[in-house]
Amino acid sequence: MTTNDWFWWQRPDLGYVNGRLHLQQHNLQALAESAGTPTYAYSSHRFRANWRRLAGVLTAREVPHKLFFALKSNRFLPLLTFLRLHGECGVDVCSPSELLLARQVGFAESDITYTNTAVSNADLDIIARHPGIQVNCDALSTIRRLGERSPGRAIGLRINPELGLGYHDALHYAGVKTTKFGIYLDHLPEAMALAKQYGMPITRLHFHAGSGYLSPQLETFARILVENGRFLDQLPDVTTVNIGGGLGLKLTADGHELDLERWGDLLANFAKERGVTIQAEPGDYLIKDAGVLLLQVAMVERKKETLFVGVNGGFNLQPLSVYYQTPFVVVPTVLRQGAMQPTTVVGNINEGIDIWAENIPLPPLVEGDTLAFLNVGGYGSAMSSNHCMRGQFSEYLLVD
Amino acid sequence: MTTNDWFWWQRPDLGYVNGRLHLQQHNLQALAESAGTPTYAYSSHRFRANWRRLAGVLTAREVPHKLFFALKSNRFLPLLTFLRLHGECGVDVCSPSELLLARQVGFAESDITYTNTAVSNADLDIIARHPGIQVNCDALSTIRRLGERSPGRAIGLRINPELGLGYHDALHYAGVKTTKFGIYLDHLPEAMALAKQYGMPITRLHFHAGSGYLSPQLETFARILVENGRFLDQLPDVTTVNIGGGLGLKLTADGHELDLERWGDLLANFAKERGVTIQAEPGDYLIKDAGVLLLQVAMVERKKETLFVGVNGGFNLQPLSVYYQTPFVVVPTVLRQGAMQPTTVVGNINEGIDIWAENIPLPPLVEGDTLAFLNVGGYGSAMSSNHCMRGQFSEYLLVD
Repeated sequence: MTTNDWFWWQRPDLGYVNGRLHLQQHNLQALAESAGTPTYAYSSHRFRANWRRLAGVLTAREVPHKLFFALKSNRFLPLLTFLRLHGECGVDVCSPSELLLARQVGFAESDITYTNTAVSNADLDIIARHPGIQVNCDALSTIRRLGERSPGRAIGLRINPELGLGYHDALHYAGVKTTKFGIYLDHLPEAMALAKQYGMPITRLHFHAGSGYLSPQLETFARILVENGRFLDQLPDVTTVNIGGGLGLKLTADGHELDLERWGDLLANFAKERGVTIQAEPGDYLIKDAGVLLLQVAMVERKKETLFVGVNGGFNLQPLSVYYQTPFVVVPTVLRQGAMQPTTVVGNINEGIDIWAENIPLPPLVEGDTLAFLNVGGYGSAMSSNHCMRGQFSEYLLVD
Repeated sequence: MTTNDWFWWQRPDLGYVNGRLHLQQHNLQALAESAGTPTYAYSSHRFRANWRRLAGVLTAREVPHKLFFALKSNRFLPLLTFLRLHGECGVDVCSPSELLLARQVGFAESDITYTNTAVSNADLDIIARHPGIQVNCDALSTIRRLGERSPGRAIGLRINPELGLGYHDALHYAGVKTTKFGIYLDHLPEAMALAKQYGMPITRLHFHAGSGYLSPQLETFARILVENGRFLDQLPDVTTVNIGGGLGLKLTADGHELDLERWGDLLANFAKERGVTIQAEPGDYLIKDAGVLLLQVAMVERKKETLFVGVNGGFNLQPLSVYYQTPFVVVPTVLRQGAMQPTTVVGNINEGIDIWAENIPLPPLVEGDTLAFLNVGGYGSAMSSNHCMRGQFSEYLLVD
């Protein structure tokens, strides 16, 4: 890896200025010193740029659309409030508590989609109290039990297109193996009969085939859109197709990107051909690269041939890499002079899986330095645990 | 699987009485109805029986010993208080917050071991305020920085025996690959020099080679004890060897067990030969099979060829199976009449990995039934997250 390659992750709003890492013009070493560590920092500008880029691709193609931020990826209240006040997005929720949180932040019912699996009667009782939210039913059982509570209400169907997408096999939510998600084409007639029984028009199709998809997966994405047609052919009342989330980002120097123009073309053709409005529920795509986690170097020690850098936070603060082998970018907030050396960055949890990055090139580090972990804005704080009682961290929204 | 095999997990204090599942004579369906779900229930009797069994094996062989419950496996306060009031165990902690919690529950400093990796200066400042706890240093850096704060204090060395144990590769904390844990034999002279520099006698060796080991791994366990000898030969002040935790349980009908008698023999020979006291830090072994998680069946639905039973709790409540493919036993609290059928039990989190058990034989179930998940007492509540804001649960200590 050349030195230039090492800096591949830099962008106008994220990079070194005089050897000090800045995000949205904020000096992250200074933030670590004032806030302490562990600390998450989120760039509101990058968050907004991400939703604008995505919406822009659709607007440019005159595709009627609406984005719904997947709240489960990050529910830091200042971030949600920023989205509510300055966003053109709704929010997607997947539990009653998330629904109530979205309402607490001021989202109108009509700006909320609700998509979940294994929905309980207790969940449905709360959904029924919110007649304006857009519910996507993922099972026949859900249609029946929602119908008992909210007859006459328009619903969406979460379908299973039997094709999977994603960065990692575990992120395929549909495919060869039968999954818990969605209604299969085989069961569509039953679903339609149930909806009819409760007077519920089916006005929306929803699918979510996987997470972290990139350009190489766009051919499958196109096939999924075709597969949707087999459902749409039978559902005359559908006016909206929700394509879920799952858009991926380039995560490594030599990793793939997502060709958004091609993505937009596929959706434009589909929307025009079918005469539907497009909804999408990006979560990680909007917040992942807007968030950094700052941790302090607690220990620098060579053990046998491996240089270990131990930091004051572990995988319990950001479990994505353990769940899905998602790589993080790890860089110091202050660039010390000296040769890069292969370094393994580990956390302070007593488990072998608690490894942030293995054998990555890093400049010299000493105990007390700060490391910034990039691409951690989604499913970090939201999925964190207090394992080993190491769950304390702070969060900052960078506003200006 | 014959019907008898299906009941393999039953034991005198756990099983069906008139078709209703009881733990420590408590009707778990009645508990689910009064407490609601999700609910963890812990049998104090089983917890005590587990530590007594383990200690009994060593007592029978006249091995001087002491057990320290690994608090990170379960920190439910009534459970810790029960242990403090009725136990003959200390506790093992791995963070300042855990240390303070142990003190809050009333454990004396001398009954607390502290073993962690990537220990920060902030951690050491709190450790230094507790001169009586038994600290096991896992790196040269830790010895140096503890020495700066607590010169003259006796310490333990966590060593890396370069041999791994465990149910799953990810649970090997030592082995061919260099890990972050412990001090390697190569670095022992440096460790001894540092300890001498700060006047800190090394009175204890500690190793933890992995988790979930069973009879087939006991040969490796024996080799690790031999490997310890290479350290002990150079450390004349050591009077105690802490063998960590990691003892496993039989988890499936055809799974291995752990031959405790053989384990005791190995330790008795070792302790006698070396003239040392044995410490152990079992966590999961003491609480795993004392704990059940009660969840309600939210949805029963066949999708294509698969019968899915969706429950009102997901992997965020008990992540062990996602981290380590640890199987759970899943059984209904009330046995309905009818043929067993292959069933896939899934949670209510919008992720493909949220699967409790795949294609296990279960009697007929209907929505509203309660399922009991067995062998979930360790690293469940303690490692749970609020992912999707589905982190709410209650915990009950069964006392009588």
